[in-house]
Amino acid sequence: MEYVKSLQWRRTYVELLDQTLLPEKEVYLKIDDAASMAGAIKRLAVRGAPAIGIAAAYGLVLGAKNIPAKNFNTFNRELKKIARQLIATRPTAVNLNWAIQQLLNIANGSKNKSIEQILSALEARAGQIHQEDKILCKKIGNFGANLFNTNNVNLLTHCNAGALATGGQGTALSMIYELSRRGKTVHVFTDETRPLLQGARLTAWELQKAGIPITLICDNMAAVVLQKKKIDAIIVGADRIATNGDTANKIGTFNLALLAKTFNIPFYVAAPYSTFDLTTKSGDLIPIEERNSDEIAQIGNRRFAPEGIDIYNPAFDITPNKLITAFITDRGILKPPFS
Amino acid sequence: MEYVKSLQWRRTYVELLDQTLLPEKEVYLKIDDAASMAGAIKRLAVRGAPAIGIAAAYGLVLGAKNIPAKNFNTFNRELKKIARQLIATRPTAVNLNWAIQQLLNIANGSKNKSIEQILSALEARAGQIHQEDKILCKKIGNFGANLFNTNNVNLLTHCNAGALATGGQGTALSMIYELSRRGKTVHVFTDETRPLLQGARLTAWELQKAGIPITLICDNMAAVVLQKKKIDAIIVGADRIATNGDTANKIGTFNLALLAKTFNIPFYVAAPYSTFDLTTKSGDLIPIEERNSDEIAQIGNRRFAPEGIDIYNPAFDITPNKLITAFITDRGILKPPFS
Repeated sequence: MEYVKSLQWRRTYVELLDQTLLPEKEVYLKIDDAASMAGAIKRLAVRGAPAIGIAAAYGLVLGAKNIPAKNFNTFNRELKKIARQLIATRPTAVNLNWAIQQLLNIANGSKNKSIEQILSALEARAGQIHQEDKILCKKIGNFGANLFNTNNVNLLTHCNAGALATGGQGTALSMIYELSRRGKTVHVFTDETRPLLQGARLTAWELQKAGIPITLICDNMAAVVLQKKKIDAIIVGADRIATNGDTANKIGTFNLALLAKTFNIPFYVAAPYSTFDLTTKSGDLIPIEERNSDEIAQIGNRRFAPEGIDIYNPAFDITPNKLITAFITDRGILKPPFS
Repeated sequence: MEYVKSLQWRRTYVELLDQTLLPEKEVYLKIDDAASMAGAIKRLAVRGAPAIGIAAAYGLVLGAKNIPAKNFNTFNRELKKIARQLIATRPTAVNLNWAIQQLLNIANGSKNKSIEQILSALEARAGQIHQEDKILCKKIGNFGANLFNTNNVNLLTHCNAGALATGGQGTALSMIYELSRRGKTVHVFTDETRPLLQGARLTAWELQKAGIPITLICDNMAAVVLQKKKIDAIIVGADRIATNGDTANKIGTFNLALLAKTFNIPFYVAAPYSTFDLTTKSGDLIPIEERNSDEIAQIGNRRFAPEGIDIYNPAFDITPNKLITAFITDRGILKPPFS
């Protein structure tokens, strides 16, 4: 059971899957400097919070290797400049900022080391961040897989919380790879996930490539699927979880959680423990980004809605804690009450 | 408050709005013979069961006028040949078959009349079918509008059950035109309605053209809209209604009905009384058409899903009677129990 690698470190370059070309073309970019990595992140060749963080860390390592300076102060000043360029690519991405900061901290504390030693330490830390993410994904997958006792498992998922979004085998999709490794027969219904179609473009491609049988549906067909197709659970990822368990995730998640309740089907949120935002008490305090209306009006290069109409395009919604059966995290399963 | 006309009779031709070009271009075709009308129906330039029936009736009148025969038997044989060509364009369309049959019955009973008298009677009956549909739409709209007592009405609708689907001002959308005529402020949230995007392409265009404020959303955003936007009612059309009230309509309707229940919002089905199928006792007896997977995989001329995956594409779903607040018909409002 091999999952696709969103990116791999090759010492002098990063091999990066260009997700903008999926599912039509599987193209791996050879990214060998920081500016190219910044460009790749900006144009969404790599996406998903964990994957972006790892890509940016490797990007900073590549940039550091190209700094001609021989003394620490000049080197560190140049390094910070490159870091700022990388951070500016996706200003709201928490993991990106965190990963870059990890590397800057190492450099800041290395005044008495040689540039070569610093480069070596930066590369080691970037690799470690990647490795930690792989382990974390694997843990989530194992805890998730333990929830299913039968030999046939039929799941429904939304958006893409898979290998393509992380440095490992994903969050919500991780348990699918684990179940398959355990010899279970897994089938996955995949919501296409309007407006950006991550389910159709990414999840369907990723699971097909791993040999997992999937069935693609439109978002508005989930009710019929839950009513008729013997779904064992709905599994989704999370962008941010309040301390009371209210969960922000891709638009459409709330609708699925309500349907799960109606049809009495378990609704699982799979996410690293770090997704819990301990500074936010409940979901109504999480700001919801409204995105450009063209994402809905235009698909591919064709416009389907009339010009000049109002369009509402919330990128996320909040699923109230009471609709969530359990959180599947790298530290184990969290069941209600969540507090 | 003017609504757009899907088609108009001009004595020597039908002025037909080419719906395949919406919303980008508003083009009216001049259809002056039966073969062109058959082609227009086949390629969905006109769609919606009532509109198709009227278009086909006019198409048969145009065809009849071009029959060179001077004696009844030859004329009637040619007429039937044209009728078969028109019926073959959309074999499952009940209204189409019904409308054509109305005209054939007139011809069959006119053995002793002149060809000119027959042509005149056919034209009169086609116009009458069109006029009856206009009146029926208007009645549905009036009964529907009576349900709202406030000055501001905020609705949510799915697919297109509007003027574009009928010979008049529509079924579900008819009450919107009536409310507006009564001086009410009406706003409509419109689901884009995947996979074929009738909401984005047709309903948004039709209502915008009539000056009704609308907001377009993706289907998976309805839950958030119902939760936050003070919706007074959800209004949809119907393709077929069983005698117990179970309703077949465009895929996604069932999901909306479940959400309406959750958020305690009235869910209205607007349809001609003739949509009740007295031969079908309940919804589980209504066959659900599964359509070509390319409708989901491909949008415009671009493919978004990987090749070779399984795709589930039910064109309709069944909303159980218990989720329906009332039916709005040309004979009045039907409330539960429906029997």
